[in-house]
Amino acid sequence: MIRIGLHGASGKMGSEIIANLKGLNNAKLSVAYTIEPMSVDDGVIVTDKYDVLFDNSDVVIDFSIAKASINLINYARTNPKPLVIGTTGLGDEGGELIKLASAMMPILQATNMSLGVAVLNRLTEIASRVLSEFDIEIVEMHHRNKIDAPSGTALTLGEHAAKGRNLSLANVRVSGRDGMIGARSKDEIAVMALRGGDIVGRHTVGFYNDGEYIELNHTATSRATFAKGAIKAGIWLANKEPKLYTIYDALGI
Amino acid sequence: MIRIGLHGASGKMGSEIIANLKGLNNAKLSVAYTIEPMSVDDGVIVTDKYDVLFDNSDVVIDFSIAKASINLINYARTNPKPLVIGTTGLGDEGGELIKLASAMMPILQATNMSLGVAVLNRLTEIASRVLSEFDIEIVEMHHRNKIDAPSGTALTLGEHAAKGRNLSLANVRVSGRDGMIGARSKDEIAVMALRGGDIVGRHTVGFYNDGEYIELNHTATSRATFAKGAIKAGIWLANKEPKLYTIYDALGI
Amino acid sequence: MIRIGLHGASGKMGSEIIANLKGLNNAKLSVAYTIEPMSVDDGVIVTDKYDVLFDNSDVVIDFSIAKASINLINYARTNPKPLVIGTTGLGDEGGELIKLASAMMPILQATNMSLGVAVLNRLTEIASRVLSEFDIEIVEMHHRNKIDAPSGTALTLGEHAAKGRNLSLANVRVSGRDGMIGARSKDEIAVMALRGGDIVGRHTVGFYNDGEYIELNHTATSRATFAKGAIKAGIWLANKEPKLYTIYDALGI
Amino acid sequence: MIRIGLHGASGKMGSEIIANLKGLNNAKLSVAYTIEPMSVDDGVIVTDKYDVLFDNSDVVIDFSIAKASINLINYARTNPKPLVIGTTGLGDEGGELIKLASAMMPILQATNMSLGVAVLNRLTEIASRVLSEFDIEIVEMHHRNKIDAPSGTALTLGEHAAKGRNLSLANVRVSGRDGMIGARSKDEIAVMALRGGDIVGRHTVGFYNDGEYIELNHTATSRATFAKGAIKAGIWLANKEPKLYTIYDALGI
Repeated sequence: MIRIGLHGASGKMGSEIIANLKGLNNAKLSVAYTIEPMSVDDGVIVTDKYDVLFDNSDVVIDFSIAKASINLINYARTNPKPLVIGTTGLGDEGGELIKLASAMMPILQATNMSLGVAVLNRLTEIASRVLSEFDIEIVEMHHRNKIDAPSGTALTLGEHAAKGRNLSLANVRVSGRDGMIGARSKDEIAVMALRGGDIVGRHTVGFYNDGEYIELNHTATSRATFAKGAIKAGIWLANKEPKLYTIYDALGI
Repeated sequence: MIRIGLHGASGKMGSEIIANLKGLNNAKLSVAYTIEPMSVDDGVIVTDKYDVLFDNSDVVIDFSIAKASINLINYARTNPKPLVIGTTGLGDEGGELIKLASAMMPILQATNMSLGVAVLNRLTEIASRVLSEFDIEIVEMHHRNKIDAPSGTALTLGEHAAKGRNLSLANVRVSGRDGMIGARSKDEIAVMALRGGDIVGRHTVGFYNDGEYIELNHTATSRATFAKGAIKAGIWLANKEPKLYTIYDALGI
Repeated sequence: MIRIGLHGASGKMGSEIIANLKGLNNAKLSVAYTIEPMSVDDGVIVTDKYDVLFDNSDVVIDFSIAKASINLINYARTNPKPLVIGTTGLGDEGGELIKLASAMMPILQATNMSLGVAVLNRLTEIASRVLSEFDIEIVEMHHRNKIDAPSGTALTLGEHAAKGRNLSLANVRVSGRDGMIGARSKDEIAVMALRGGDIVGRHTVGFYNDGEYIELNHTATSRATFAKGAIKAGIWLANKEPKLYTIYDALGI
Repeated sequence: MIRIGLHGASGKMGSEIIANLKGLNNAKLSVAYTIEPMSVDDGVIVTDKYDVLFDNSDVVIDFSIAKASINLINYARTNPKPLVIGTTGLGDEGGELIKLASAMMPILQATNMSLGVAVLNRLTEIASRVLSEFDIEIVEMHHRNKIDAPSGTALTLGEHAAKGRNLSLANVRVSGRDGMIGARSKDEIAVMALRGGDIVGRHTVGFYNDGEYIELNHTATSRATFAKGAIKAGIWLANKEPKLYTIYDALGI
């Protein structure tokens, strides 16, 4: 029975993970880290102390906010523990920190834990490489309360698209178009963010050429999809060697 | 037989109109105004003079660029002639000018001459009013060589959406999202522009609420669609009284 | 406080209605009619007797199966009570029975109680009439466990499409295409049913012509959408005169 | 300069191939086989005789109807010549014949010659294998005059989807749903055909699971796409060894 510590337990994804851990026979929630009051099942520790979180879990799953996530990883550098990082918006600095930390413990980072999005990333990279003459545009849509844009998932898709052409997304990304913009440049990749309703998550990667186009879409209709993926990743990671792993490693695709 | 003068005859839409006028038994191309050399059928006058254009036509159809279109309308103010204006990007100033000019002659202005888009505008206004709690987002896509964004058609759709809620699009329009943008405001309407391939024109107006959403899409697959609409509008307009008309008037919807 | 009796209380939609009635200050669940054991909140009567259901409610909402629904309506003919009928698949016979019964009590019948679908029906009828030259095709998608096809909602959309052209859906409906089918006939309307995953409900009505097409889509992402609509309809219907009402009447659109 | 003989020269695809051969510097139209009168450029032979067709070409491209295509292949068995077969609806019998004939000459057969559709087939097979728990549904749409259904392209996509699960499409294909159909079976793959307007070709392969789904779409907006692919395939095939080749071989993907 893998003991799972949850960092960011009182958030939306935290609740989903708690709900989806119930009834499993190979993993259970052991510690809920939160700075807000919350009620949990008997036998689960609620804490706002890193040492309590780490001492009572075999793997820690993190769905919090960027700043809190960075603090957690920094603490882990001197107190190694398998980490699943699902928090988005960590930036280049966060990425560097995770690389460093992964020398001490197994870390799996993914902007999206669903099987479907992992597959979409793979297909995007293939299509980008083979359809080298096609223009690439990405559109994501999320609920009206999402505060950052574009989504981490959309940026990761953009990176896979760019990778298929040996480009760096940072150099070619466009996030809006307005006015006399001129003709589209060959390499640019728009990553456009729509917001509205309670949309869980929808991403479309499009490839456009004269006379034909391909559009690859993933739609998540439930956050349970992400929670299940994160739990699966956590169980898989618990007994691995120190290294930076990807969601592909955990899913075996 | 209505004699049609074409302003902007050497452009993409100009060619389409010339092609679609062939074989009609109630209208024909009489003058092609262009500042570039071009070959036309026997009996058609090619000119770069406004007086020749106006003297030899019953109605002038304009698909040029903003500056040229403004010049044409200014000339018409003292030399009245029925005008169909299909050029986009005229701005508020152009709009004011057209209003003034329409006291002297019938003018029909539309950012899109297709029946389908006219219907989409109508449906958008209805849906916006009835689905008053829903968030509105608009996405347009055009070929890689389109130089302005968003499309005139998308802006007109946005205006119909805003009108359904007694809002002004100018006050609520968003054309990109990037970074920590915070939660979506209730009234904002994104009008996002995608570019790629040789897409003729695709517009989607979405209405999103908790638990459900509606998306209304129009796709043009041929510029002939716009040319046919403009010719239909020109024939209709040729014998009307001075006034500013809409595409709805011409289509009778 | 409107007392709502629920016929089909132990089904999927029954659960949704019970969940969405909680916390309302103008309506409450008073009786749950079911032939299976079920647990409810204190103060709610569970019964398998029509007289108990009718004596303890101001309006009865029905989401059951066709046969049970017919029985309920027959009972109501001699024991009038406002009825909201959400059960689908009642057939022509059921429709006739409802008409007869509505002489004795107010009845509201709808194959879909969501605001969005009501609007989509309206837009479909308008578009069908104005775009009279366009070919119409309808596609619906639902979860893998839905046992009937096409959905009641899709059939209702088809009826609105047919109505816009003074056709009867029964005469022009197509539900599959395979083999050497020949060219499409002008009037036919395909209503195609897709099944898969846990899709709550997705309907697209398309209008296709040379050079352009329009597609109107509604997607439900939660059954709560239907439950809220049915409760709203029930509260509205409770004090109306005997008559057959539509969801448009209840929503005021 | 590869000499291309065209079988089915007076059809829609024939015209497209003739138009797209113009101006090429590595291939040219040498013979147009047709049983109807047609006008061609100087230097091109028009014939209704197989020997003239074969004697004056390095490769023959066939876009005709099933029966004519079978005749052509039979003739080629004793008069070998590189063949690109784009005609659809040849059936199992036609498939067997092509296999036999490919012992004598290089043959490339494809239900769709576009790069985009080739890629979509590849992605479909990958997704089908990795997303083994997801339900698969395919929807195609074509213009109102297409006489067969589903399209050859949709059937090929279905075969790739089935192959990813070690299934045979013939055993699991569904082409319509109507009435009390019961819950969806795990393995079935619907291939639904929509018809309307002048749609060149649109195919969507969907993968649906609880909480998420993926939809892969290809849209052709011009028949030139298919013509260019067929010409590319013909040039590639002209000097190959006898064997049955696929479009993947020609495109190198």
